Amino acid sequence: MTGWIAVDWGTSNLRAWGMEGDAPVWEVATAEGMSTLDPEGFEPALLAAVGDRLDGPTDVFACGMAGSRQGWAEAPYVPVPAPPGSGDAAVPPVSDPRLRVRILPGLSQADPPDVMRGEETQIAGLLAREPEFDGAVCLPGTHSKWAHVSAGEVVSFRTAMTGELFALLKSSTLRHSLGEWEEAPFLDAVSEAMSRPERIVTDLFRIRAAHLLDGDGTGTSRLSGLLVGAELAATRPWWLGRPVALIGAEKVRDAYAAALRAQGVPVMPHDAATATLRGLAAARTAMAG
Amino acid sequence: MTGWIAVDWGTSNLRAWGMEGDAPVWEVATAEGMSTLDPEGFEPALLAAVGDRLDGPTDVFACGMAGSRQGWAEAPYVPVPAPPGSGDAAVPPVSDPRLRVRILPGLSQADPPDVMRGEETQIAGLLAREPEFDGAVCLPGTHSKWAHVSAGEVVSFRTAMTGELFALLKSSTLRHSLGEWEEAPFLDAVSEAMSRPERIVTDLFRIRAAHLLDGDGTGTSRLSGLLVGAELAATRPWWLGRPVALIGAEKVRDAYAAALRAQGVPVMPHDAATATLRGLAAARTAMAG
Repeated sequence: MTGWIAVDWGTSNLRAWGMEGDAPVWEVATAEGMSTLDPEGFEPALLAAVGDRLDGPTDVFACGMAGSRQGWAEAPYVPVPAPPGSGDAAVPPVSDPRLRVRILPGLSQADPPDVMRGEETQIAGLLAREPEFDGAVCLPGTHSKWAHVSAGEVVSFRTAMTGELFALLKSSTLRHSLGEWEEAPFLDAVSEAMSRPERIVTDLFRIRAAHLLDGDGTGTSRLSGLLVGAELAATRPWWLGRPVALIGAEKVRDAYAAALRAQGVPVMPHDAATATLRGLAAARTAMAG
Repeated sequence: MTGWIAVDWGTSNLRAWGMEGDAPVWEVATAEGMSTLDPEGFEPALLAAVGDRLDGPTDVFACGMAGSRQGWAEAPYVPVPAPPGSGDAAVPPVSDPRLRVRILPGLSQADPPDVMRGEETQIAGLLAREPEFDGAVCLPGTHSKWAHVSAGEVVSFRTAMTGELFALLKSSTLRHSLGEWEEAPFLDAVSEAMSRPERIVTDLFRIRAAHLLDGDGTGTSRLSGLLVGAELAATRPWWLGRPVALIGAEKVRDAYAAALRAQGVPVMPHDAATATLRGLAAARTAMAG
């Protein structure tokens, strides 16, 4: 028996949770992300993941790329400034009468142009827990998001391609020069990239040369640190002089927390899945009300 | 009848020219670059490319990655400062008595660590033509090289991963937001990246967002411009106040020339293949003498 279903449907993954009120009671994850599916493929993919849990008509609240133009049903972006979680949900067509699906919209920014889908729900989850939060929210990932949140609204935000660059560069010429991640060389590289951001394209090759000439084994740590440092250099107006709520999975969150604390920034870590579920639960409550 | 054979053996390609004195009389190119070959594969790959041109024992002068540790025979790096083209050539083992192969060494730099293989021969070719050249040499490519050349020596150099980053990012999330290359948005992006190099990781995602929200079609030009601008920001100590000799294939050379001239830098363009052949011919002459 399931009260409702929460779904985080991203580019490369689908995660779904059976919910009783605000509490998850089961969880499934598949690799059927938005990028692997035609519009007709979303309902079968959802049923494959959660169909055997359905014992009657069930509300499904989803966030993420399933609501993009290339997704299941487009939920148009809400322009900032706006409360995260505001705007109209999309209702995709379904064949199975047990599914009552709503997909929450993302946020857009006109100048400079920027978009997010999914992270706004995590920010809404943070605000559901801390309605008075005023500061920066950092959501590290494939496309890291930085949002300025004040008076219950996302005022502005920026996206950095940090995680995608890390994945791309791990398969580049640098692939021969990586090794295990360690905090000390990571923090050194963060600091170098922040103080000399103009050197990023030469500092990246230096990883390869240091390995070739000196057998340096800190490549993974330095690659990760240079990219996180470049992100912190680009987003300085967001975190400088503000408390930072850091929403992410444990490993990436710990690395960003170390990098930010090394700059003297107060950091409050939050679990990503918990924030997503709080945001989806808040959307469900708002629509019921 | 062939006097000797010039070979540029890079990571992903093999180019060979039949030479009479300093003049090429035929040319072949194959995709059997260093990365596709075991050490035992180099001789068969060379014979497949030039074997039917051999009518007796023939000198072969090669530069590039064939001389790396993972190549045919290692030609250890010569540390800078050094004249390009100095150092001992490697003589790989061959079975075919018609081949008399020498592979020229690359250059290395201890601090900051850096390496080049192949470009030193192009710089030597430039110096063969202009022995008094004093300034910066820019060799744009997968791994762009910037060298400070004075008194016939490479004094220092740096490598930027510009071309490889461009190729990686063309296949990233940005692949949906590219279009044709045009000079005006390219130069705008060069200028933006040079004046705000700390924003590179957010400016990259902005390409995607501008396409999604505004239908912007300048993605290829902006991606190329941001990366070239990041390279010029990183290499400012090389080109500032110095004439720049620009050695490359026509298309990439024209883009770099436009970017540098927009900064008021005097640029002298040189053809890459011509520089390679001059450098290999100079090495042959030096070894004969």
